[in-house]
Amino acid sequence: MASTTAGKVIRCKAAVAWEAGKPLVIEEVEVAPPQANEVRIKILFTSLCHTDVYFWEAKGQTPLFPRIFGHEAGGIVESVGEGVTDLKPGDHVLPVFTGECKECDHCKSEESNMCDLLRINTDRGVMLNDGKARFSINGQPIYHFVGTSTFSEYTVVHVGCVAKINPAAPLDKVCVLSCGISTGLGATLNVAKPNKGSSVAVFGLGAVGLAAAEGARLAGASRIIGVDLNSKRFTEAKKFGVTEFVNPKDYDKPVQEVIAEMTGGGVDRSVECTGSINAMISAFECVHDGWGVAVLVGVPNKDDAFKTHPINVLNEKTLKGTFFGNYKPRSDLPSVVEMYMNKELELEKFITHEVPFEEINKAFEYMLKGESLRCIIRMTE
Amino acid sequence: MASTTAGKVIRCKAAVAWEAGKPLVIEEVEVAPPQANEVRIKILFTSLCHTDVYFWEAKGQTPLFPRIFGHEAGGIVESVGEGVTDLKPGDHVLPVFTGECKECDHCKSEESNMCDLLRINTDRGVMLNDGKARFSINGQPIYHFVGTSTFSEYTVVHVGCVAKINPAAPLDKVCVLSCGISTGLGATLNVAKPNKGSSVAVFGLGAVGLAAAEGARLAGASRIIGVDLNSKRFTEAKKFGVTEFVNPKDYDKPVQEVIAEMTGGGVDRSVECTGSINAMISAFECVHDGWGVAVLVGVPNKDDAFKTHPINVLNEKTLKGTFFGNYKPRSDLPSVVEMYMNKELELEKFITHEVPFEEINKAFEYMLKGESLRCIIRMTE
Repeated sequence: MASTTAGKVIRCKAAVAWEAGKPLVIEEVEVAPPQANEVRIKILFTSLCHTDVYFWEAKGQTPLFPRIFGHEAGGIVESVGEGVTDLKPGDHVLPVFTGECKECDHCKSEESNMCDLLRINTDRGVMLNDGKARFSINGQPIYHFVGTSTFSEYTVVHVGCVAKINPAAPLDKVCVLSCGISTGLGATLNVAKPNKGSSVAVFGLGAVGLAAAEGARLAGASRIIGVDLNSKRFTEAKKFGVTEFVNPKDYDKPVQEVIAEMTGGGVDRSVECTGSINAMISAFECVHDGWGVAVLVGVPNKDDAFKTHPINVLNEKTLKGTFFGNYKPRSDLPSVVEMYMNKELELEKFITHEVPFEEINKAFEYMLKGESLRCIIRMTE
Repeated sequence: MASTTAGKVIRCKAAVAWEAGKPLVIEEVEVAPPQANEVRIKILFTSLCHTDVYFWEAKGQTPLFPRIFGHEAGGIVESVGEGVTDLKPGDHVLPVFTGECKECDHCKSEESNMCDLLRINTDRGVMLNDGKARFSINGQPIYHFVGTSTFSEYTVVHVGCVAKINPAAPLDKVCVLSCGISTGLGATLNVAKPNKGSSVAVFGLGAVGLAAAEGARLAGASRIIGVDLNSKRFTEAKKFGVTEFVNPKDYDKPVQEVIAEMTGGGVDRSVECTGSINAMISAFECVHDGWGVAVLVGVPNKDDAFKTHPINVLNEKTLKGTFFGNYKPRSDLPSVVEMYMNKELELEKFITHEVPFEEINKAFEYMLKGESLRCIIRMTE
């Protein structure tokens, strides 16, 4: 499929964040053609993730504005830059906030997905190739966000950050696999790896934690214990396989002790999806000695310290961390899409809201009020 | 082989610790017959381990005296108690300070060796069966140590703490596999599991650390970096495969940074064998992000706190602990003995000294002066 726009600047709509915490403004932007190893993508659906909100609020970070946020999305390749051979116009793709160059030690390792070249970079607002933005308004550059900037009808992404997927997959559903859902799902399936019939504790029942629970359900765990400070979340969590619920506020002892008593010494696996340092420590200490594995997913604050008595380690508990569920974006995401196509993985239940692109600020409101898991933003009607 | 002593009290020599830190005294003791699920063993060779010295010094612990120490040994079954079917008089065995009941959740788990019934207990000085000691002098009970008390010509051990080994194996060599050597070796082979050609850092070049290095050598690691505060240990460490040496005192930055610079970001695996909390933290932080695994072996102080920034975990470093190298005593030790018999595992280089039983206090002196790795104590001439 030859594109009539290839090699030319595209004028299209994008939601621009001009200032920290202020509503996005739909603007007409110019999107430059992709350079070497870049791909220009027509975004059809995007969804909002906490990380967008976090950097939009820009509390405690170096703010970088004006910027186009967005990193969970599905689209179709419009054109490709020099040297791109894996992708061609018309391919259905998921852009991803972290990449896979396929050449560094991490990409060559079976154990890592932390590509040296394309690992997430939240400070850089420009493309690697020339250190410039591909977005502009009347000559003023508009910064990128984590290399994806999917709150735009067209965006430019490094080829290493683009997963080519089954064209039969509905992009309005699988777009959520670009970030949070894969992060939680992979934390359980790829890192915690619970055995069939085992017990799993999930800390934090937001979208990532529920995806971790979904992973435990898929792995055949028989007890999935949800831990959250908001008891209202338990009702929804049951849909994701959560069988029991613990609210740490209901007890006057540490939640790790509560869980140990519920399970005869501790759970087989735990997955921490809050980013709270106390939850991280509890998640580690609540696993069974001898074989328990705790997996940390949530992103901690800069000054946090993980602190535990080393005897907890010596008692053969394992502590692991994961980034994007240990999925390599290009190599592994296509098979996660297939899990959905085969009706194993259920994505619909994560999608609680939908808005047209013009109403993108509503997606921010739903998330800030804690009402939504995922809100799909339709780029075209 | 029928024993003429079966069912009777045996009078024999034992090295009794009457008081904390005072030289052992060779006494004639009475050793009662084994009760249900117990085995009486004629000890031929025993060796001294730091743990014996630690509890003999009894600093900061509840002292339990008079006591017969010793837990690394090789011997021959003299008689067995009721219900013992796995062992018979004449079997060559290694008594072990921790056990394997084969019935609890830990014994049934492939991942754990921390038997609920027979896990190491340093406070208990009596047998499980009746809560009494099998040793006495003129009716005064002499306490056991970690269920083994091998500083005696005869001892009584729970059947779950006895590994039956190849009778062709020389007991004066393989006796060291009862504790320290297996602990270090298994930490590398069973838990760290370095790939061929990988890099491994070993913290602490005592017997356990050198056994961890020996494990790395057997696994085909190409760089084995020894870390110790005593630079003299490097010469000997080379025999165990250590290729490079780092003394943290030689640098004005944390040793984890030194190692990261030496290895382009960190080692693939690290094994901590000192028990120092700072070494534990360094061992964790010196592994490569994405795939690094740190294994803690050393026993920490009661009040220590393991403290690290959680981003180290999220960068896909793994922290594991191990107890007795994750070996199940009865199921796994026989195959470690076979590794020695097949000339893969070299044990001779760990044995630096030998003394007759009468001179057992010399073994303590060698260890306290830091002169010995393992000193074999010959029970009979």
